[in-house]
Amino acid sequence: LGEQHVLFKILTCLMFHIFKLIGSGAAAQVVTSRGTHGDYLTIQLGSALGAVFGIFVARGVSGAHLNPVYSLSLCVLGRHPWKKLPLYSLSHLVGAFLGAATVYLQYYDAIQTFSGGELLVAGPNATAGIFCSYPADHLSFWGGLVDQVVATALFLLCCVALEDQRNGPLPDGLHPVLVGALILTMGVSMGSNCGFPLNPARDLGPRLFTFVAGWGEEVFKAGGGWWWVPIVAPFVGGLLGTLTYELLIEAHHQTTPQSPQQEQEAVELEEVVVDSGNNR
Amino acid sequence: LGEQHVLFKILTCLMFHIFKLIGSGAAAQVVTSRGTHGDYLTIQLGSALGAVFGIFVARGVSGAHLNPVYSLSLCVLGRHPWKKLPLYSLSHLVGAFLGAATVYLQYYDAIQTFSGGELLVAGPNATAGIFCSYPADHLSFWGGLVDQVVATALFLLCCVALEDQRNGPLPDGLHPVLVGALILTMGVSMGSNCGFPLNPARDLGPRLFTFVAGWGEEVFKAGGGWWWVPIVAPFVGGLLGTLTYELLIEAHHQTTPQSPQQEQEAVELEEVVVDSGNNR
Amino acid sequence: LGEQHVLFKILTCLMFHIFKLIGSGAAAQVVTSRGTHGDYLTIQLGSALGAVFGIFVARGVSGAHLNPVYSLSLCVLGRHPWKKLPLYSLSHLVGAFLGAATVYLQYYDAIQTFSGGELLVAGPNATAGIFCSYPADHLSFWGGLVDQVVATALFLLCCVALEDQRNGPLPDGLHPVLVGALILTMGVSMGSNCGFPLNPARDLGPRLFTFVAGWGEEVFKAGGGWWWVPIVAPFVGGLLGTLTYELLIEAHHQTTPQSPQQEQEAVELEEVVVDSGNNR
Amino acid sequence: LGEQHVLFKILTCLMFHIFKLIGSGAAAQVVTSRGTHGDYLTIQLGSALGAVFGIFVARGVSGAHLNPVYSLSLCVLGRHPWKKLPLYSLSHLVGAFLGAATVYLQYYDAIQTFSGGELLVAGPNATAGIFCSYPADHLSFWGGLVDQVVATALFLLCCVALEDQRNGPLPDGLHPVLVGALILTMGVSMGSNCGFPLNPARDLGPRLFTFVAGWGEEVFKAGGGWWWVPIVAPFVGGLLGTLTYELLIEAHHQTTPQSPQQEQEAVELEEVVVDSGNNR
Repeated sequence: LGEQHVLFKILTCLMFHIFKLIGSGAAAQVVTSRGTHGDYLTIQLGSALGAVFGIFVARGVSGAHLNPVYSLSLCVLGRHPWKKLPLYSLSHLVGAFLGAATVYLQYYDAIQTFSGGELLVAGPNATAGIFCSYPADHLSFWGGLVDQVVATALFLLCCVALEDQRNGPLPDGLHPVLVGALILTMGVSMGSNCGFPLNPARDLGPRLFTFVAGWGEEVFKAGGGWWWVPIVAPFVGGLLGTLTYELLIEAHHQTTPQSPQQEQEAVELEEVVVDSGNNR
Repeated sequence: LGEQHVLFKILTCLMFHIFKLIGSGAAAQVVTSRGTHGDYLTIQLGSALGAVFGIFVARGVSGAHLNPVYSLSLCVLGRHPWKKLPLYSLSHLVGAFLGAATVYLQYYDAIQTFSGGELLVAGPNATAGIFCSYPADHLSFWGGLVDQVVATALFLLCCVALEDQRNGPLPDGLHPVLVGALILTMGVSMGSNCGFPLNPARDLGPRLFTFVAGWGEEVFKAGGGWWWVPIVAPFVGGLLGTLTYELLIEAHHQTTPQSPQQEQEAVELEEVVVDSGNNR
Repeated sequence: LGEQHVLFKILTCLMFHIFKLIGSGAAAQVVTSRGTHGDYLTIQLGSALGAVFGIFVARGVSGAHLNPVYSLSLCVLGRHPWKKLPLYSLSHLVGAFLGAATVYLQYYDAIQTFSGGELLVAGPNATAGIFCSYPADHLSFWGGLVDQVVATALFLLCCVALEDQRNGPLPDGLHPVLVGALILTMGVSMGSNCGFPLNPARDLGPRLFTFVAGWGEEVFKAGGGWWWVPIVAPFVGGLLGTLTYELLIEAHHQTTPQSPQQEQEAVELEEVVVDSGNNR
Repeated sequence: LGEQHVLFKILTCLMFHIFKLIGSGAAAQVVTSRGTHGDYLTIQLGSALGAVFGIFVARGVSGAHLNPVYSLSLCVLGRHPWKKLPLYSLSHLVGAFLGAATVYLQYYDAIQTFSGGELLVAGPNATAGIFCSYPADHLSFWGGLVDQVVATALFLLCCVALEDQRNGPLPDGLHPVLVGALILTMGVSMGSNCGFPLNPARDLGPRLFTFVAGWGEEVFKAGGGWWWVPIVAPFVGGLLGTLTYELLIEAHHQTTPQSPQQEQEAVELEEVVVDSGNNR
């Protein structure tokens, strides 16, 4: 059983490694090719597809916890043991760190050529943004907090809804694809303020890597000490999103204690409910 | 039962909030980043994915009525009680208003920086188009009416067809994805005249928000008083599309009263029908 | 039964009307907005999604014959009565003609503004390419023939394979989506020579409309009398593709007369077959 | 049985022919139209969709071995007879050669016009990159090796995971689509160093064609004799990826010898396992 435990940690790392490798690889490709090998959309497709295939590789064994924020939400709701949270999060962090290292290895020549050998966090030849999030020039501190709380609340709300069998069934194999579509959604609608980190492990792990690998302490100083916002704000937003969904659904299940209902049945039910409400 | 009723309204609001938040967020991102964080396609992807995840969140409980035009069509066909229509539409309107407010909150810094603090409806620094529809310069009044009638007729025709189990089954979970694909379809093929509003609530709610939030009465005056066209024309087009489908299918079910048929069976049947018709 | 027959024709027309309306609308939008409301990819997405929703509307009743070339192939293979071919093709033609007319109606203001009121077939302000295919400047007569034979052969080969239940099952509802993906495939890989007509009805119907609507006889004269190539070449290519698939599958079913096999079983079988072949 | 064997080879060739025809056609279209008929994303969509429809055509009979690297991995794992490997690989090579020839035939006019009749491997009018991979200017020899080992390891790891029923079921018909999505993933995240060959047959076959068809021996000399890297490195990476997955899953199945488990069950199991591990 101990072996199983270790294996589980390794697979979780691997999933995050793949997730980070594909997502950041897409950014590395567009940045270092100066836009000849992709554009903003291909970077978002990379992030989305990275999640899809990270989950497909690990889903059968590790259950595909994609985000420490999600794990925390499950703990708060009493569906996940608190004692597992630190090790989960550490696995995520290690996986994302190793993923960033692999991206740097694979794009070493390209990054060196693009940056002229200088690893910078800001300016036209900056390459740190390949690995983790930095705020846009226009973004204030409060604006960044709001952006991340809103975005992660929406993200977790949708994640929890997709996994709720009571809300409607999904065919096997469609779930990972929809999680990818959700990440694409965040990228096209909430990416320009600060790159939609959403995920503390996916942001901090690679930031630590860039700190070690030569970008230096600027990765923590940039944006007025931005680095902790994508760690703290997603937890706040994630709890907000999860609780919103749970409250609404709990309320629904308290008033309608039947077995899982499908879309049409729910509509019919609702018609009856409203009608009888009006007939009284 | 009253609680259930209230919950239902809240979930419908929430769905529209999400729908608007993602769709308008994608526009805000592209406009305020001046095209560096997306292009026309990513805006359409945002609108489409906003609908997909709005439905996934609310489908189990609220039945995912996406559009007052659709609700009206069902009322006309006798499948939905008329007395529910006003409250449905009000929920849609409130949800879309709140969605627009959230987009403004999230993109407040970006919109202020982009516009230099001036909230304009027209010109190169206009930002009102992020929230609701305005006609292109080339569009005449009658052109706008025709555009919206044609587009909403097609939209409702396809919506009704996707939901018609007699026309062919869909796997669980594919329906919300196809509704999203349908919105993407409208965006890539009928978006350049006036931004394919299609949905009175989605257009009026955010317009009211921009009126209140500082864009002023120009949001109602622009385009020669355009604002009522995306409210009235979609109802006309929606009825047209729904009735077209119903007439064709009703005619079909009058002549072939059998149980639901699948694609291949229908083809075989048709062969027999035509052959026997010719043999007479 | 006569009513059923007429209804069937109307639904086939309607499917083609939708197919053409969405596909050509996407082109009209990009051309008349001079690329601000889409790009080459959005036009191809429009063509693909037009087919998807055309099929979803009509699939339950009309069986979704998308192309006279496909109908002809089925006739040649003895799976479709020859006497139905002319009426099918006529329905396709009428539907495509009406679809083109609707696009012109919807984009009337935009086309007039873009072209300065002159409806041209060639030059920077040409608008005829919105409706039907014209060869690129580099394309020779033989090059056009080869392009259309190769493209339609591939198209029909894939169409027939998707519909072959013996080759592997598809979930309900995925078939129309894959036909759309196939059209997108043709657009991204075989569209630059002459716009991948593939479909005589979809090309000739709109060409007749533009002839009538003011583009004049230049629509038949352009490209050295190009108009008949996208009518004749697709039939040649379509037969080639269909026969290729049928011969290979017929050969397969002669040597392996078992019941429908799925992917893995076929692999296992093949392993046995090859092994025993080598053991002899 | 011999006929079956021959048929199998022909279908495998055909699948590769289609795969190459669509993927390289997309590149030919973008290159020769100088970007007016597509962009980097449409080329990747072409590669992805080429695989999807190549598999859909051949899946029922040939089992859709897409890559000699995959076949080798199966041989190493003892799941595929070694003696079949050479003929498989030869079929792949012949199919890819013929696919490249068909692309040249279809785009002959366009390539001649674009290149002014000179078939070049490098420079602004180069056309050899339509058919097979060449390294970017910034790429060192070791960088190219690393890129291909990392990319093919990830590719095979995901391929094996998608086919592992123990890891989680997939609906019929989704598998070919996900293989296409995987190829799109590689294109958007690992394509700018050397065009993600991943597949020795798909790279060498077309290279041989261009050698014969007029590009000359420069196709082997370019990039400091690059040609053998996309043949050797993918085998190394492919074995690495396959073995990584097999070791992790073997370890998992040794510790949990139950029948195939689905996602949720695995999660529940894992909870129990970890809990009981902690309770000891």
